Amino acid sequence: MKRYQAIFQPSGRRGEIPEGTTVLEASRLLGVGIESVCGGKKTCGKCRIRIDSGTFDQYGIHSHPDHLSPFTGEEGKLLGENERAQGVRLACAATIQGDVLIVVPEESQTGKQVVRKEASEKKISLNPAVRLFPVTLPFPTLNDPLGDYERLVAALLERFGLQRPGIDYPALLALPGALRKGNWTVTAAIWMEREILAVFPGEVEEAYGLAIDIGSTTVAGYLCSLRTGKLVGTESRMNPQVTYGDDVIARITYVMEHPDGLEKIRGAIIECLNDLIRTVTGNAGLFPSDILDIALVGNTAMHHLFVGIDPHPLGISPFTPAVHRSLDIKARDLGLAVHPAANVHILPIVAGFVGADNVGVLIAEEPYRRDEMTLIIDVGTNGEMILGNRKKLLSASCATGPALEGAHIRFGMRAAPGAIERIRIDRETLEVSFKIIGVERWRPEFRIKSALGICGSGVIDGVAELYRAGIIDQSGRFRTDLATPRLRMAEGKPEFVIAWPDETALGEAITISQQDVRSVQLAKGALYAGAKLLMKELGIEKLERVVLAGAFGSYIDKTEAMILGMFPDCNLDHVSSVGNAAGDGARIALLNCDKRLEAEEMARQVEYLELTLAKEFQQEFTSALFIPHMTDAFPHLPPLDHKN
Amino acid sequence: MKRYQAIFQPSGRRGEIPEGTTVLEASRLLGVGIESVCGGKKTCGKCRIRIDSGTFDQYGIHSHPDHLSPFTGEEGKLLGENERAQGVRLACAATIQGDVLIVVPEESQTGKQVVRKEASEKKISLNPAVRLFPVTLPFPTLNDPLGDYERLVAALLERFGLQRPGIDYPALLALPGALRKGNWTVTAAIWMEREILAVFPGEVEEAYGLAIDIGSTTVAGYLCSLRTGKLVGTESRMNPQVTYGDDVIARITYVMEHPDGLEKIRGAIIECLNDLIRTVTGNAGLFPSDILDIALVGNTAMHHLFVGIDPHPLGISPFTPAVHRSLDIKARDLGLAVHPAANVHILPIVAGFVGADNVGVLIAEEPYRRDEMTLIIDVGTNGEMILGNRKKLLSASCATGPALEGAHIRFGMRAAPGAIERIRIDRETLEVSFKIIGVERWRPEFRIKSALGICGSGVIDGVAELYRAGIIDQSGRFRTDLATPRLRMAEGKPEFVIAWPDETALGEAITISQQDVRSVQLAKGALYAGAKLLMKELGIEKLERVVLAGAFGSYIDKTEAMILGMFPDCNLDHVSSVGNAAGDGARIALLNCDKRLEAEEMARQVEYLELTLAKEFQQEFTSALFIPHMTDAFPHLPPLDHKN
Repeated sequence: MKRYQAIFQPSGRRGEIPEGTTVLEASRLLGVGIESVCGGKKTCGKCRIRIDSGTFDQYGIHSHPDHLSPFTGEEGKLLGENERAQGVRLACAATIQGDVLIVVPEESQTGKQVVRKEASEKKISLNPAVRLFPVTLPFPTLNDPLGDYERLVAALLERFGLQRPGIDYPALLALPGALRKGNWTVTAAIWMEREILAVFPGEVEEAYGLAIDIGSTTVAGYLCSLRTGKLVGTESRMNPQVTYGDDVIARITYVMEHPDGLEKIRGAIIECLNDLIRTVTGNAGLFPSDILDIALVGNTAMHHLFVGIDPHPLGISPFTPAVHRSLDIKARDLGLAVHPAANVHILPIVAGFVGADNVGVLIAEEPYRRDEMTLIIDVGTNGEMILGNRKKLLSASCATGPALEGAHIRFGMRAAPGAIERIRIDRETLEVSFKIIGVERWRPEFRIKSALGICGSGVIDGVAELYRAGIIDQSGRFRTDLATPRLRMAEGKPEFVIAWPDETALGEAITISQQDVRSVQLAKGALYAGAKLLMKELGIEKLERVVLAGAFGSYIDKTEAMILGMFPDCNLDHVSSVGNAAGDGARIALLNCDKRLEAEEMARQVEYLELTLAKEFQQEFTSALFIPHMTDAFPHLPPLDHKN
Repeated sequence: MKRYQAIFQPSGRRGEIPEGTTVLEASRLLGVGIESVCGGKKTCGKCRIRIDSGTFDQYGIHSHPDHLSPFTGEEGKLLGENERAQGVRLACAATIQGDVLIVVPEESQTGKQVVRKEASEKKISLNPAVRLFPVTLPFPTLNDPLGDYERLVAALLERFGLQRPGIDYPALLALPGALRKGNWTVTAAIWMEREILAVFPGEVEEAYGLAIDIGSTTVAGYLCSLRTGKLVGTESRMNPQVTYGDDVIARITYVMEHPDGLEKIRGAIIECLNDLIRTVTGNAGLFPSDILDIALVGNTAMHHLFVGIDPHPLGISPFTPAVHRSLDIKARDLGLAVHPAANVHILPIVAGFVGADNVGVLIAEEPYRRDEMTLIIDVGTNGEMILGNRKKLLSASCATGPALEGAHIRFGMRAAPGAIERIRIDRETLEVSFKIIGVERWRPEFRIKSALGICGSGVIDGVAELYRAGIIDQSGRFRTDLATPRLRMAEGKPEFVIAWPDETALGEAITISQQDVRSVQLAKGALYAGAKLLMKELGIEKLERVVLAGAFGSYIDKTEAMILGMFPDCNLDHVSSVGNAAGDGARIALLNCDKRLEAEEMARQVEYLELTLAKEFQQEFTSALFIPHMTDAFPHLPPLDHKN
């Protein structure tokens, strides 16, 4: 088989690639992150790349667009004439037939996302699973030749009342050396008062743990002192599985269709986490082996792909997970390069689509300790909801599709530099102002040629503002009688210009189309209908609190979200964003083992409502497609300036 | 650094060896087994080799004795003139300085030992730790989307009353596939009703386990059905650690003196066990992964070296082990290539020199269920003893040295083909008859030129017969007034010819020297004195039972052993050999988990008596050096034909 040189820019990664490999496959082989929402099915059009022509002496290659396979019909459907003229190709469609220098434009790069998973300043009461116990032992003599482990256990009983904890294999290996090096004073790190994980010579005061939140898009790690609970470092990474498919279903499909898919996709996240671990410990002046405990959350698919469980059953009805209850697996079994005796505590799962991330939100928000009827919405690719109070909790999952994250939207993109994240439309002039991620001011002169697309919060703002300004009606249809050049027809369908060509880096206008509005309606309709069914099931008429969770949730303008009708009416003062509550939940579980038990109990108590089985769902969904709703009243919304 | 070709014969192993490497090191690098009792200290003289001169076209080398470093003073002390003339060298002293073809004579090869670890036909009541539980589950629907693990656990509770067993990581990974492949009928392999180790599609009836006995010299594996208890296969290997030192102390020294010593010596036994596992399962038509449970015994040093614990503290006073209690370690953590979820149960340890092998003997012999006062002697490089009955058990370890195994004896050797294993001396003529391992008959015509040395049981026979025939007196001194050419002087000291030069393969006579008799006296004196101290401690005057355990024990002639005075007087009808009782103990622990608890309890109850602390030891030892004893009476021995 022939092999050709492929060089990716701007990363500079290069390698010899077998003839006929797609550019997307080549990017994975070389560790280059290219967006691929559909997982290489040639349907999303997100993996745009182009070839630089010329002889590149520094690489010793001659690159030419003809060194890719011919332009395909699928690319014709997804790429504009303009793009085609500029030599843009889809990485999943074009195969390598010669030496190529491949340019990955910023909007196709996966590595550039703004990581929105800061740890909140939540106060967490401290009761870690792993604690340090310093002891001094009487040293052995011929009259008292008791073995090292029994000697240690006797001292732990005498000094701390610990009842004969077991000892993990790596700790047993370290024990004789540590006792003698420490001159019979050692510090034992013990998990749940049950298992000795490590024995250090002398007195050691600090132990560290890591809370991990594996999102479909972003992976975050929070390094904490287990003695003080203090956050010692935070580090985030793009989830490298993104290159195998943007959403959960695409990744499950990838695993199903590739014999080595599970191994690859799991290898990618483990490698990413080990890299994150090296960085977050290194920045704190620590070693990876200083991490003695890990608590981890993620949705059910991320959970399965991390553990290495075939996710296949999650992709087909009835969507059963392999396990609900929390897991404690040795880091060494999982391949995580922390202390080999560390346990990885993975929070429990409620159901196939209500995962350990939602359980994390649950123990962070504790609706089960409140009287108020609270709706928690975790907005992401799927919308997971928990409704209830101290008496009862219900959960559901809504297939919102990725529109609310900016995907499946003509100019949608992730929350990355260049994304429009806020939009306001003047009621009178219908002029648009917007804010771009990475550009501090709203003033137009700062944003010339910088916009690349619209991210999730911008999409919600945009459709809500189109409605507020009377540009679309309650059913989402564009009005056609408005005197503004921004409202225009494209291929016979109306669209509204958010950014003019001279305000974008694309060389064309960024618009919101009728199709985009429909996608948002479908997504928000699913959320709203889900919330209504949960309310009916609990027999309640109104919400007393709404909590918007998820890294993305904290960037949503709550008023715009309610104008759009993402959730039923609620006093806006009682609608709040809590940031990355799933990550908070992981930190809480790391620092307080009672909360692990609470999570286990609550995950079992939360009832899961399968929305697709409810016969009213279709009707609720149809009514909820309207903006904000066909019939429901929103007494807490400010009146519209005009009647749509 | 220069490298030379080294070829070992008869194994044919070859490789490029750096200049200056000793022949012994080279043999280890190439996996050739050469005897080395002293571990390369140039003191035992067992690693004799010679160089073949000539040009060997098939190997492309020219070999010459001068291609080794010059003859050393240490070799001069240990090799006879005759041997030196024949070009014999010590592998530990000679270094490689050019291409060599090295001949390893049979008596220096470690791979030839007769493995004397057959499983006994002991009846074992069956209650294995790992049992199979077949269940059929209701399959999941949207109305009942319970996760796989919870579904399995519910069925196990309903059908077998099992209380929510946990699940090991490999089993969790296999679970979703097994359930679907088995169409919701699966068989779970569960350990101690606590942990699901494996889940197989459909109904599976057979599960297998392996009992392992790691001796200093021989490793034995017993493959058993966990359903019927039946022995499905037996396989033995030389312990490859022999190349790092013949006895426990030499191996501990090797680890202390080499930074990578522990890793190497542990790697050798793991590799050996994995090879044994492949063979024993293959011969039974099974796969290594069919082994779901392992029970293992070995002396404390073998235990530590197998687990990977630094054995250093075992080599220096007060000889404390790292751990007494039994261990359950995952096979995957230990690197054993069986089912990855299998647990390796390692029996507990009594003390530094009374190991898991002795605990194996204990649960096989059960002296704690008897009224008779029983002495169990495990004869090996060390002599471990347990004395007691249902009321109390005491243990001790005697530093016998390896004389009783045939080492540190001029013509001593292991129990290998060519070894003299039985000796009788005619009271009148003082003529000798003997039996050689590998030669069926006692008749002289079958043994011409076949004797290579004397193994342990032959040494005991020899010294006892010298005493019975009046050739040595009670103090072990040779008489000088006997009219037989067999009694002769060598370098001014008397020796007795067992085999004439034309009866040996050595080209010289095999003799028992005054020094050899002294070595045996020291060894048996230590055993006897130990037994006496244990008896005093328990306040008893006479033994009611004596059990000779150990692979070697079963080959000892019990009458000759008592004539020699290896243990105090006892009715010979109540002296028995039990073969490899340690291996039986491993099988018992494999097949009956109640016996594991019993072992744990008994190992804690057995008191260890440190003989070196007892002030009467020296006096007892001195008296016990006499044959059979200076003062003790042996009413159960037949009277001697004459007064020595």
